[in-house]
Amino acid sequence: MNGLELDQHYMKMAIEEANKAAAKGEVPIGAVIVRDGEVIARAHNLRETTQNAVTHAELLAIQQACEELGSWRLENTILYVTLEPCPMCAGAILQSRIPRVVYGARDVKAGSVDSLYRLLNDERFNHQCEVKENVLADECGGLLTQFFRALREKKKKRKLL
Amino acid sequence: MNGLELDQHYMKMAIEEANKAAAKGEVPIGAVIVRDGEVIARAHNLRETTQNAVTHAELLAIQQACEELGSWRLENTILYVTLEPCPMCAGAILQSRIPRVVYGARDVKAGSVDSLYRLLNDERFNHQCEVKENVLADECGGLLTQFFRALREKKKKRKLL
Repeated sequence: MNGLELDQHYMKMAIEEANKAAAKGEVPIGAVIVRDGEVIARAHNLRETTQNAVTHAELLAIQQACEELGSWRLENTILYVTLEPCPMCAGAILQSRIPRVVYGARDVKAGSVDSLYRLLNDERFNHQCEVKENVLADECGGLLTQFFRALREKKKKRKLL
Repeated sequence: MNGLELDQHYMKMAIEEANKAAAKGEVPIGAVIVRDGEVIARAHNLRETTQNAVTHAELLAIQQACEELGSWRLENTILYVTLEPCPMCAGAILQSRIPRVVYGARDVKAGSVDSLYRLLNDERFNHQCEVKENVLADECGGLLTQFFRALREKKKKRKLL
């Protein structure tokens, strides 16, 4: 596989994670962390299930990866995530020194890698990341559009009952 | 107690937490979350102990508070923290909808509430916070200065041996 094919391969795993979230009624966002070609963490958004505000897919994956490597420094890793990270998750990426981040769709409302801020490329911080966006973006974004459309229809039906 | 005295009262608890961190060889930062005058969470930085990149004082306190309240929405709460939050922790404050944040010293290197960014007052996000800085700032900052000075001296001594 070439570079793009590899990125798509791992993004598909992140999409699988996002689908697991959707099946639980969670906003479908998934993340995977890879090191030397090995998947060391995979997680999906669990905010409603856990009622814990910080259980975004990326944060859960970062914690798993730290446990797996026994270190808060996630050197030589790549984080794949279906949606552009929010400030909390972008900050967690900086904290864990992840060198490369690949994401699917942009998040125009809270995305802090390209949309509202460029937190992963601010030279005032002690870490910067290589970033690649737009990998299987239509599929990643489509999951979210579909999820929110279904949610709105459900709410409408409830009102009619 | 008036408003300032109350803020100082809870900041002292956050400083106690920071001291617990220092005793473990951790960078001394502490946080407390209060709701209706009751302390519902208190935590200190545990990054080295846990080897988990996201175990900052604020993030641990937010998770405790979510568990305590059984909700990811920390309504009617105040977060006290000895140091200006980093992007990850500022993001977690937004995610958990904490309405008020009180902090001690500024963090000129990574602070994202006033120093490098003003993440808690960006109207593009779906939440903003009331922020108060500079509460027992000298004491809060002094703990950090003292910690890093001791660390440098320790390293020097090691080199001489």
